[in-house]
Amino acid sequence: MRINLNKIMRKDKSLLLAYDQGLEHGPSDLNERTVDPKYIFDIALEGLYDGIITQHGIAEKYYAKYYKDVPLIVKLNGKTSLANIAPISRQLCSVDRAIKLGAVAVGYTIYTGSPNEPDMFAEFSKIVEQAHDYGVPVIAWMYPRGSGIDEKNNNILAYSARVGLELGADMIKIKYNNDPEGFKWVVKCAASTKVLVAGGDKVDETALSSKVRRNNEDRCYRNGRWEEMFGNTITL
Amino acid sequence: MRINLNKIMRKDKSLLLAYDQGLEHGPSDLNERTVDPKYIFDIALEGLYDGIITQHGIAEKYYAKYYKDVPLIVKLNGKTSLANIAPISRQLCSVDRAIKLGAVAVGYTIYTGSPNEPDMFAEFSKIVEQAHDYGVPVIAWMYPRGSGIDEKNNNILAYSARVGLELGADMIKIKYNNDPEGFKWVVKCAASTKVLVAGGDKVDETALSSKVRRNNEDRCYRNGRWEEMFGNTITL
Amino acid sequence: MRINLNKIMRKDKSLLLAYDQGLEHGPSDLNERTVDPKYIFDIALEGLYDGIITQHGIAEKYYAKYYKDVPLIVKLNGKTSLANIAPISRQLCSVDRAIKLGAVAVGYTIYTGSPNEPDMFAEFSKIVEQAHDYGVPVIAWMYPRGSGIDEKNNNILAYSARVGLELGADMIKIKYNNDPEGFKWVVKCAASTKVLVAGGDKVDETALSSKVRRNNEDRCYRNGRWEEMFGNTITL
Amino acid sequence: MRINLNKIMRKDKSLLLAYDQGLEHGPSDLNERTVDPKYIFDIALEGLYDGIITQHGIAEKYYAKYYKDVPLIVKLNGKTSLANIAPISRQLCSVDRAIKLGAVAVGYTIYTGSPNEPDMFAEFSKIVEQAHDYGVPVIAWMYPRGSGIDEKNNNILAYSARVGLELGADMIKIKYNNDPEGFKWVVKCAASTKVLVAGGDKVDETALSSKVRRNNEDRCYRNGRWEEMFGNTITL
Amino acid sequence: MRINLNKIMRKDKSLLLAYDQGLEHGPSDLNERTVDPKYIFDIALEGLYDGIITQHGIAEKYYAKYYKDVPLIVKLNGKTSLANIAPISRQLCSVDRAIKLGAVAVGYTIYTGSPNEPDMFAEFSKIVEQAHDYGVPVIAWMYPRGSGIDEKNNNILAYSARVGLELGADMIKIKYNNDPEGFKWVVKCAASTKVLVAGGDKVDETALSSKVRRNNEDRCYRNGRWEEMFGNTITL
Repeated sequence: MRINLNKIMRKDKSLLLAYDQGLEHGPSDLNERTVDPKYIFDIALEGLYDGIITQHGIAEKYYAKYYKDVPLIVKLNGKTSLANIAPISRQLCSVDRAIKLGAVAVGYTIYTGSPNEPDMFAEFSKIVEQAHDYGVPVIAWMYPRGSGIDEKNNNILAYSARVGLELGADMIKIKYNNDPEGFKWVVKCAASTKVLVAGGDKVDETALSSKVRRNNEDRCYRNGRWEEMFGNTITL
Repeated sequence: MRINLNKIMRKDKSLLLAYDQGLEHGPSDLNERTVDPKYIFDIALEGLYDGIITQHGIAEKYYAKYYKDVPLIVKLNGKTSLANIAPISRQLCSVDRAIKLGAVAVGYTIYTGSPNEPDMFAEFSKIVEQAHDYGVPVIAWMYPRGSGIDEKNNNILAYSARVGLELGADMIKIKYNNDPEGFKWVVKCAASTKVLVAGGDKVDETALSSKVRRNNEDRCYRNGRWEEMFGNTITL
Repeated sequence: MRINLNKIMRKDKSLLLAYDQGLEHGPSDLNERTVDPKYIFDIALEGLYDGIITQHGIAEKYYAKYYKDVPLIVKLNGKTSLANIAPISRQLCSVDRAIKLGAVAVGYTIYTGSPNEPDMFAEFSKIVEQAHDYGVPVIAWMYPRGSGIDEKNNNILAYSARVGLELGADMIKIKYNNDPEGFKWVVKCAASTKVLVAGGDKVDETALSSKVRRNNEDRCYRNGRWEEMFGNTITL
Repeated sequence: MRINLNKIMRKDKSLLLAYDQGLEHGPSDLNERTVDPKYIFDIALEGLYDGIITQHGIAEKYYAKYYKDVPLIVKLNGKTSLANIAPISRQLCSVDRAIKLGAVAVGYTIYTGSPNEPDMFAEFSKIVEQAHDYGVPVIAWMYPRGSGIDEKNNNILAYSARVGLELGADMIKIKYNNDPEGFKWVVKCAASTKVLVAGGDKVDETALSSKVRRNNEDRCYRNGRWEEMFGNTITL
Repeated sequence: MRINLNKIMRKDKSLLLAYDQGLEHGPSDLNERTVDPKYIFDIALEGLYDGIITQHGIAEKYYAKYYKDVPLIVKLNGKTSLANIAPISRQLCSVDRAIKLGAVAVGYTIYTGSPNEPDMFAEFSKIVEQAHDYGVPVIAWMYPRGSGIDEKNNNILAYSARVGLELGADMIKIKYNNDPEGFKWVVKCAASTKVLVAGGDKVDETALSSKVRRNNEDRCYRNGRWEEMFGNTITL
């Protein structure tokens, strides 16, 4: 089946609003306004984001009112920063449930280099098989992690990007290491898998609703010298 | 499907009688009267509790006579305090079995911060998917636990509350840390997930049957200065 | 479905003949006569026992001739004493197979306090769900075990008995600690779950066939001062 | 269903040709002739063996031509001697596949005393349930193994034989310890489970095809003073 | 069902182009040209390779245009070289998915000697069962690995080859140790399982497209003094 990326892309670019910090980092990343999912869904709507990314619990309670206007990407796995264990992020939502909740794409984090890498590879690959049976695209957060792993090293990032391709991701989200020349190789290793750049400077959420999207598109265009680069996500 | 919380709420509040101490703490928490499940079910009936919480074994043997009068919440996981292992509470009852036993809601404890957190996250999320397919609400006991985890810290409690929201809980039960200002943030992090406060002072069970409910409602109202707070549970 | 205990009880008492020593302790518990399952099945028949307890392998090869006369309880889990590992007894026979073999009840050992307690709790609870769907009662061997666990302590025994109730056992088998007053509390904690006392002095098997049953009934009656106590099993 | 042992027995004896050394010990047990499965299948045919025992891979590639003449026993688990781990032999072939390949019986090794004993017990018991549903007999290799386990001790061998009975084996293969009096007890502990003796002196394979079978039958008869003993296998 | 090897063989030889280095070794094995899967698929087409070997992700995105011209072998498991763990390569693609993607054969790596050997043996054997139900051949990468394992030792290689036969592989890929006499035994141990030799000197990829195939066939013929040897693969 043809994998349909058009629902979360415009002009071959994508600007996605990730809202999983409450789970991944804890509420210390949130404030009195951003703690409220409705506030963020409104930003996604007003800012014309190409999609919002949440865990299934938030999607289930808040997404119904935005169904027609904001594409939903359900992040299928997740973890807290509380437990002191080797990096592992387990699947918390089935592909079927994500689709029922209205998702047009699903996401999954892989910690390349972790001792738990084999478990995440296997879980991710099953997700790809299931999602692609529905024509639903899969976005892989490719995050190198583990002892002896340099998370900003070009070779490590390139390796992680390649894993995304080999394992069937339609898009990867990867952290930009501020090395434009080196990062070209990272993007090439992903080949036909789309590359979303994570991060950039932390942005005040009040700036996101109307103006930031354009600004970020600008930044995409400036970064357009990497023609293989696809788009950008904003982390609050 | 719409998740129906009305069966265990009145006036947007809920007063639940938890009766799982025999498993979680052992019979040392019980006395000659409270050791008998019938005695507690009668208190739940007379005290007009919004629900009684038990393991499947007690529900199966004792609940039939109270079916029309006391809402049942089956606690789906549980553990003893005997084994000296990292905090883990495994699922002991399927959602299907809980519903057959008459449950109008199901509960599950998550020990945030435990090395076994990933297993509990995955198990809990499947329960949410299954229960919500029936429209049955899920209550999460959000208990931070583990080495280096301060169980009364506002940030840890807020993080745990947030996990409940992100993973799809309809209500969380969380221990109040006697810091009213700090606890407001905990409640905000749960967003639309209802918050039940666990504990308070230990109450003699003879006081529970007729008078305590009103007293506890009073206490709820007094505590009503946290408008997001939903209700209260009583632990014997 | 109503759980039917009548097939292994008479006058609210039960005298069961357990024959799993060959697996649990090894053949050193057996002699030239008792090593032969047929010899023991004959004792169960002549002694009018309320049931015989065996592993599925022995039931399959020997029970057919006794089908009409001796109720069968298949012990669903088991282990040897050879392996030097933390206490764990895994399920070795499905509920379906036990019923096909003619079982009117099934048994399962839980080592409370073992690091493997969560696995046994989960496995046992599924057995309860499956067996009760057929109306077949479940007997739990509640054996506290593990480092720092006093197997004869009243509180530990009471806790273990309570676990049986909470997890859905219809009967528990528990070792009597020769403290009649303390054991009353153990029995109360089991509430409506029937309590079978394991052990007593080792009896020569030649005495079992005709006379012992009456003697043991006498002993039951003498022990009848614990009205909640239900019956007794004989260990060869 | 009746378990049919007649296909691998004659006159209540059985002489089986085991050909799994290539996996269990490595090719150092093989020579230029015996490395070829066809050579061994021909010996099994000419020597009138009551069955040949192989892994599923060899059965699939070589057994078709011998289907009518040599009974096949597929060994369902196996391991190499390369990995330095606690004794464990995992199931590598389903009962269904073994039957499709033409097996009239299936085999499985249990390392009693291994820390992995519980896993093998559980896996073996499921195999018994599945195979017996088809009326297919199950042969258990009962090999005591592990630290502190004396593999030739009569009590250990007797315990292992007993495990075979309790867990539903129709035959066990066990190593003879050259203690005829002590071994009688081993055989008694197996009760109605047939006992095959493994080993004896290593025999040159050129002697196997025509003459050895009779010799081994002779040896069986000489060993016939243990009337419970059933037969014999030859290990190359 | 007959296992059909003809689709990846010509004149009883096979020359396969493996393209999984991006996952197994990382992009450091690739250059600006070979990083692009299309470039390699074109080489496979022009070089008349008997098949190309890729992970499911690359097959899904690139194979459609080559469907009629280049046979596809999907490698079902894989791992990176990033994680510092005992050798384990988990299944990442189901047999069903591989067939949907157009595969005429599937591959799987087994690290003989690894502490994780039992898991890979079990996973591989299930794959054999599933693939052979469709008549699809299975290629096993037999790579000895682990502490104390000499990866070039004739006995270890012979043992690994034998494992491939015993576990049902239709072809094995094994590394040649440059010992022609010793390697004969390796090939004999594989018996009717076909042997593909991995490696040889690293070849510049620009030489592969038109001329190398003939050259490699030449090399095959020169190596034809091992008549049991079947073919050859080229690793870039």
